[in-house]
Amino acid sequence: MTTGPTADTLEVFDNPNPGRDYEIVHTAHEFTSVCPITGHPDFARIVITYVADQRCVELKSLKLYLQAFRNEGAFYEALVNRICDDLVGVLAPRRLEVRGEFSVRGGLSSVITAAHP
Amino acid sequence: MTTGPTADTLEVFDNPNPGRDYEIVHTAHEFTSVCPITGHPDFARIVITYVADQRCVELKSLKLYLQAFRNEGAFYEALVNRICDDLVGVLAPRRLEVRGEFSVRGGLSSVITAAHP
Amino acid sequence: MTTGPTADTLEVFDNPNPGRDYEIVHTAHEFTSVCPITGHPDFARIVITYVADQRCVELKSLKLYLQAFRNEGAFYEALVNRICDDLVGVLAPRRLEVRGEFSVRGGLSSVITAAHP
Amino acid sequence: MTTGPTADTLEVFDNPNPGRDYEIVHTAHEFTSVCPITGHPDFARIVITYVADQRCVELKSLKLYLQAFRNEGAFYEALVNRICDDLVGVLAPRRLEVRGEFSVRGGLSSVITAAHP
Amino acid sequence: MTTGPTADTLEVFDNPNPGRDYEIVHTAHEFTSVCPITGHPDFARIVITYVADQRCVELKSLKLYLQAFRNEGAFYEALVNRICDDLVGVLAPRRLEVRGEFSVRGGLSSVITAAHP
Amino acid sequence: MTTGPTADTLEVFDNPNPGRDYEIVHTAHEFTSVCPITGHPDFARIVITYVADQRCVELKSLKLYLQAFRNEGAFYEALVNRICDDLVGVLAPRRLEVRGEFSVRGGLSSVITAAHP
Amino acid sequence: MTTGPTADTLEVFDNPNPGRDYEIVHTAHEFTSVCPITGHPDFARIVITYVADQRCVELKSLKLYLQAFRNEGAFYEALVNRICDDLVGVLAPRRLEVRGEFSVRGGLSSVITAAHP
Amino acid sequence: MTTGPTADTLEVFDNPNPGRDYEIVHTAHEFTSVCPITGHPDFARIVITYVADQRCVELKSLKLYLQAFRNEGAFYEALVNRICDDLVGVLAPRRLEVRGEFSVRGGLSSVITAAHP
Amino acid sequence: MTTGPTADTLEVFDNPNPGRDYEIVHTAHEFTSVCPITGHPDFARIVITYVADQRCVELKSLKLYLQAFRNEGAFYEALVNRICDDLVGVLAPRRLEVRGEFSVRGGLSSVITAAHP
Amino acid sequence: MTTGPTADTLEVFDNPNPGRDYEIVHTAHEFTSVCPITGHPDFARIVITYVADQRCVELKSLKLYLQAFRNEGAFYEALVNRICDDLVGVLAPRRLEVRGEFSVRGGLSSVITAAHP
Repeated sequence: MTTGPTADTLEVFDNPNPGRDYEIVHTAHEFTSVCPITGHPDFARIVITYVADQRCVELKSLKLYLQAFRNEGAFYEALVNRICDDLVGVLAPRRLEVRGEFSVRGGLSSVITAAHP
Repeated sequence: MTTGPTADTLEVFDNPNPGRDYEIVHTAHEFTSVCPITGHPDFARIVITYVADQRCVELKSLKLYLQAFRNEGAFYEALVNRICDDLVGVLAPRRLEVRGEFSVRGGLSSVITAAHP
Repeated sequence: MTTGPTADTLEVFDNPNPGRDYEIVHTAHEFTSVCPITGHPDFARIVITYVADQRCVELKSLKLYLQAFRNEGAFYEALVNRICDDLVGVLAPRRLEVRGEFSVRGGLSSVITAAHP
Repeated sequence: MTTGPTADTLEVFDNPNPGRDYEIVHTAHEFTSVCPITGHPDFARIVITYVADQRCVELKSLKLYLQAFRNEGAFYEALVNRICDDLVGVLAPRRLEVRGEFSVRGGLSSVITAAHP
Repeated sequence: MTTGPTADTLEVFDNPNPGRDYEIVHTAHEFTSVCPITGHPDFARIVITYVADQRCVELKSLKLYLQAFRNEGAFYEALVNRICDDLVGVLAPRRLEVRGEFSVRGGLSSVITAAHP
Repeated sequence: MTTGPTADTLEVFDNPNPGRDYEIVHTAHEFTSVCPITGHPDFARIVITYVADQRCVELKSLKLYLQAFRNEGAFYEALVNRICDDLVGVLAPRRLEVRGEFSVRGGLSSVITAAHP
Repeated sequence: MTTGPTADTLEVFDNPNPGRDYEIVHTAHEFTSVCPITGHPDFARIVITYVADQRCVELKSLKLYLQAFRNEGAFYEALVNRICDDLVGVLAPRRLEVRGEFSVRGGLSSVITAAHP
Repeated sequence: MTTGPTADTLEVFDNPNPGRDYEIVHTAHEFTSVCPITGHPDFARIVITYVADQRCVELKSLKLYLQAFRNEGAFYEALVNRICDDLVGVLAPRRLEVRGEFSVRGGLSSVITAAHP
Repeated sequence: MTTGPTADTLEVFDNPNPGRDYEIVHTAHEFTSVCPITGHPDFARIVITYVADQRCVELKSLKLYLQAFRNEGAFYEALVNRICDDLVGVLAPRRLEVRGEFSVRGGLSSVITAAHP
Repeated sequence: MTTGPTADTLEVFDNPNPGRDYEIVHTAHEFTSVCPITGHPDFARIVITYVADQRCVELKSLKLYLQAFRNEGAFYEALVNRICDDLVGVLAPRRLEVRGEFSVRGGLSSVITAAHP
């Protein structure tokens, strides 16, 4: 867990039904990263929704990829866009959306949602 | 319960109102199958939504069909598509959707939704 | 309560605002009927949504009409369509929908929704 | 509280942003009136949603207007339409909707929704 | 905290992904202002939803901006429109919506929603 | 409903099991009275818990007794103690408790609980 | 279902652990009987808690015993005491409690709890 | 609201039932004060539970007393004890408890409970 | 998973604080076994509460032990007592309780609780 | 955040009311540590309840102390006892309890509670 997150961690398997547009939602309930300014930890729920084309993301590798953000400093907005880009790069999905639901800081909670295409 | 799931288990009855497009939703709250890699059990809620044409699925046979997945090894994505295909084959419905809501594994929960046509 | 349900039980009153399309929803929280195969009781919530034309259904008569299903044997699908037909016959509404939300049997719950027109 | 409800009770103030279409929702959680047949009290939540044109309704006068129904006998359908008409008359809004959510009577709850235009 | 709210408090940073339309939602759970008539405190949840163009609002400055309403007398409708205008002025977003959910006063709760453009 | 509440409204029936100490709880979800100072309506849930000796309170008469407070001016504390005294007088129970849960006024909600003996 | 409820319906099996005082709770979510005065149906949740001595109640027979109240006229207080007596007679338990949670009638819900010894 | 909180704000009325020990609970849902170190606002729910002797606290004066903490700097622990002492001084109750439930700061929420005697 | 459950599966580790009586609760949310009469699957939540003496149960071995009930036929009462006995045998705890919360069958849900000593 | 947790991080302030036994509860909603066997992150809610003697724990230092467990490998049982010991050492409280509520791993969630004295 000493290295940061990288799309290389993500593994894929062949979509068992490429002939049908069906939706896959994976929700990571225990995401944590670090505020790049204060160094304090941030906590979020990450919801990934996609329609696979030829490839599906393997769940254990997705868990490891998201865990690698644990000590990574990143703003909410950049973080959600980066996860979106990494998954799009690996999966080439028909469509994909990443939503990050960040817990309260100073009385403010935040939800960032990025979609492709 | 020694044999695996097969569409032959599914029984049908005549749609009492084929002249009307009306929606039927059956939710199986206690679905369980087995992870094909680790051999550990998976748990899910399966939600089947359809508009019947000439045939409706009989509830007890649907229960037995879903119970037969108990010791079956299957990936989430393949499993939901298979249930969808089996029901479409038996019912020839006007439309049908299967949603599998799988419980948390390694901090990740998953929802897979396949629809016909 | 010895006779079965019949549309004759339903009473109506004049729509006080026939010049406006407005929506009326009545929800019966304590509906019960009998399974025609096993003879065991079934329980459901019945939600009736309509836009009246010239007539509104009187609430007490609606309660009595629904109570009359108490010892009636009927499949879910037939039951919801029958209530829909009875109400359409009596009210001649601009639109009407009946939803039956049936409680769990063998781990399966069901929701049937029929609409007119 | 001896006189019944009348639109004269409603006071207005100038819409501070007539140049923008924005939505205002006021929810009265403690509405009560009287059944015109049995004389028993009815209870409801009244939800008023509108887009103001030149006038907004003042909250305290709205509270007094709704409280004046306390000893008024009225059917659900007539009551919701009357509140809708009174508010439309006073506010001349771009759009307005009144929803009355009435609590359970004889196992039946009701929701009536009227909109203008 | 002696000075009132002013858009000058709001700080921005460069949108890290201006090439993508993605949604940002910030929810302030502990907003409070003062009723301009009675002088009593009002409490609300403020939900800000926007799609950034070139600029994102910095969270700490947003917190300070909203805290500055603490002793400010303002009607609900004016307040939500003012926050909307201030944020639009500073961010020049592709779209932006402000929703104020005000807690119960005299049995009435209110939700005001203003959007740009 | 023009006369105020009086214990004479309460009717009783013989306790079917006086040989056993068993608990009876009746909850009135729609209680309303009037503030003796402002004249504005108050709303509450009234929970009556008792162990009968020779007499049980009849439900319909309890409903009518509680409805008679509708236009009665009374402080919370006096009201709960009065209901407690009235029921003790009529039922002579082994024990009895009255809890009044009053809804929010000026940001404050109140619960008053009186017990006998 | 034409005959009324009788303790003869209840079947028992040998307590597998009579050497240990352990608690058994069975909750019937769909109990219904009939008001002896109005003839209208009543609905309740029945919660049976006991510590077995030599005998446990068999679940299917308990279901049939409770279903037999479907067309039985009975006051809440009498009904709960009768179920308590019937179960005590058949099981001779170390302790047993029956709680009936009856749904709202005329704005009043009721909970009756009888225990042995 | 420029002066800080003082027990002089609290008004009392005669306990209508001093012969009975009965419990009174007042819950202030919208309490706010200021952190004495950072100057940022704190938010809490204050729950006051007491058994009156000769005096009850008047609700409107309690509201004003608690509102006066709005711009007061105070640690959680000191604040709850101070409210407890002020109320004990004014009411001389048989017993009294103050619970302050403070909202999340830096991922930590706090509940402080002080009782007399 | 072909062999049935056996206490040999349970592994232990040394209690890190045997000098203190502290409570450990493990909740298995996805327990399933088989009805010995009908062969249909049963589902439950198993809650294990104990105070360790010299040994704590290792979590992964507890998971495997509970999973081994998957195809085991057992009555609720026998099952909960057996888990209790197995854990007491392996852990020799200061105290231990097992609660099985079984999902609805035929409208009846059940909770069985066994404790040692 | 590179050094591990140490009681030296904890700062205290003088108990403002040492003459009264009052309860303080601090709940950390976002605690995370690392499994000493698998290296995967664990997540928990930590609830600290105490009655201060001469010293109270300062909130910001408590946050930093708990954050320092972020990359620390520790078993649940050892972790809760260690936090308990550290706080007792620094505060010398009249009583103190630490509860760790750990999220689901392999279908099992855990709650560990240690108290002093």
